[in-house]
Amino acid sequence: MLRLTLEQAEELAQAILRRHGFSEAYVRAIGATLLAGERDGCTSHGLWRLLGIVQALRAGKVEPCAEPQVHDQAPGVVRVDARGGFSQLAFAAGLPLLADKARANGIAALAINHCVHFSALWVELEALTELGLVALACNPTQAYVAPAGGSRPLFGTNPIAFGWPRAGQAPFIFDFATSAIARGDIERHRRSGEPLPPGWGIDRHGQPCSDAGEVLDQGAMLTFGGHKGSALSAMIELIAGPLIGDLTSLESSAHDAGSKALPYHGELLIALDPQRFLGDQAARHLARAEALFMAMQEQGARLPSQRRYAARAHSLTHGVEITQTLYDDLQALLD
Amino acid sequence: MLRLTLEQAEELAQAILRRHGFSEAYVRAIGATLLAGERDGCTSHGLWRLLGIVQALRAGKVEPCAEPQVHDQAPGVVRVDARGGFSQLAFAAGLPLLADKARANGIAALAINHCVHFSALWVELEALTELGLVALACNPTQAYVAPAGGSRPLFGTNPIAFGWPRAGQAPFIFDFATSAIARGDIERHRRSGEPLPPGWGIDRHGQPCSDAGEVLDQGAMLTFGGHKGSALSAMIELIAGPLIGDLTSLESSAHDAGSKALPYHGELLIALDPQRFLGDQAARHLARAEALFMAMQEQGARLPSQRRYAARAHSLTHGVEITQTLYDDLQALLD
Repeated sequence: MLRLTLEQAEELAQAILRRHGFSEAYVRAIGATLLAGERDGCTSHGLWRLLGIVQALRAGKVEPCAEPQVHDQAPGVVRVDARGGFSQLAFAAGLPLLADKARANGIAALAINHCVHFSALWVELEALTELGLVALACNPTQAYVAPAGGSRPLFGTNPIAFGWPRAGQAPFIFDFATSAIARGDIERHRRSGEPLPPGWGIDRHGQPCSDAGEVLDQGAMLTFGGHKGSALSAMIELIAGPLIGDLTSLESSAHDAGSKALPYHGELLIALDPQRFLGDQAARHLARAEALFMAMQEQGARLPSQRRYAARAHSLTHGVEITQTLYDDLQALLD
Repeated sequence: MLRLTLEQAEELAQAILRRHGFSEAYVRAIGATLLAGERDGCTSHGLWRLLGIVQALRAGKVEPCAEPQVHDQAPGVVRVDARGGFSQLAFAAGLPLLADKARANGIAALAINHCVHFSALWVELEALTELGLVALACNPTQAYVAPAGGSRPLFGTNPIAFGWPRAGQAPFIFDFATSAIARGDIERHRRSGEPLPPGWGIDRHGQPCSDAGEVLDQGAMLTFGGHKGSALSAMIELIAGPLIGDLTSLESSAHDAGSKALPYHGELLIALDPQRFLGDQAARHLARAEALFMAMQEQGARLPSQRRYAARAHSLTHGVEITQTLYDDLQALLD
């Protein structure tokens, strides 16, 4: 393992993005989210992603200098056309107007269209909770997951995330895939030959299947939580797909046409302003939310982002560790 | 079993509500939702509920004539103070302004406060989808469910529901509890002595428990979907509790103080207008949602409300059947 300070990690990410022709705005926006992932111990959304980013760029699947276009779609709706660029810059471009609208109206939505997407949603939710807003985000991905009762890939791993601001503390944030497990975990089982636990996947006939290769190649992944998780996944397809004029996971897979590039689709965010809901009673009611968090922790339940915040605290002091292999692979991208 | 026409069923419900002093507005609003439940085969939200309604009234736990007060809280937020009455009338009172705001802004919220609640959320979502709106609804209930990793009741069974309008067809609607199973199902196991399946409940030490009595009296119910379902349940506590200035499930239980009346709390609805998101492209994109539904059904997956719609089609022709015992119990409420 090799230790980098957070500054070194961010500089490395930025240098690679710059070297491959990303505009300075993307260099900063993508660099910041990769650093956040690495810093918080979410290595699957950390520096490692640079390999896929450069691959997507070389395959012509992402625009390295696209300027997002912000549309004031309706009094409560911002729409940002990412124009084939990465979602991070589109989010940054739409955030100020989303926050303005949420504060003016109490609730507002941000639709990001035509973006290449790999980001963890919690990064965006932290930006919203820092502004004192409650927020929800979700997006389709590509067709990997069968609906409950089905047998073929249709839904994406469709993450949903929620953030709640906490005065003087890191926000309450959850961010999870509506698939039973990440696709990467099933791929790991394929490599190791380990059988899949029940509930992760099905074979081509829709029957429970513990063979990772069969699940990935002929069968399908499953949603978490049976028909309930499947219903949520369908909701995400709808509200972050057709509702915002963007692709479903199946359409995104068709667009990808087997290139296995990073997925291209849309994303929906909803922001709610507690001040507008509660007026001068906001502080009193937000204190009751704190009582709920305390009651959860008193009985031994973890708040959803605690592990991530612990990793962050450690990284802020000690920096991050990456493998020599990853470091070498990243250095090779600088040549 | 005893067969009633839908007219007879509604008249019976209305007569009982009227007999017990509910104002004519409640008689109509509650009668309509009870009929909808019975008609759609959701008997747990059908005529049977009249027993609990009258019990709550006799216990002084619900205001039979409270007039809901509608507040134009913000350009995107309607707040309705149910003033201790049943939620159905508060919803009806807030619906027109919610729809106006959603159409004007693209997205709007309805917060119902201080209501006594027993309704299935899908009834309300049908009212919104009939107006061409996409909608989400959720509410806390009373503390029955432990957070993932915990051991004591804290969350409610916290239902979440979603509706998507479909041109010329019944809407896509799901409506489920975030608990693994309804409390009534665990009570049924207690009566029959049957052991609970894994995942429904825990004992007082937070350990898996198949004894329904232990789960209900000393332990706690579990959420569906492990830590993901638990996270969703926490979100519902927050956005349909403190965010709208209303009670969490634990606070609602404290308010109830063991009377086992119908729960008293708030409810949050969010409505989104596809026309505002999509403008003149709405029809084209809504057709892609239809393609998603077709792809689900082609591989044998059920759309979430199909069973309910089938029951409805049957009831519209044949009426509904209730047990003689229930009929006698209901008749007794007319004395």
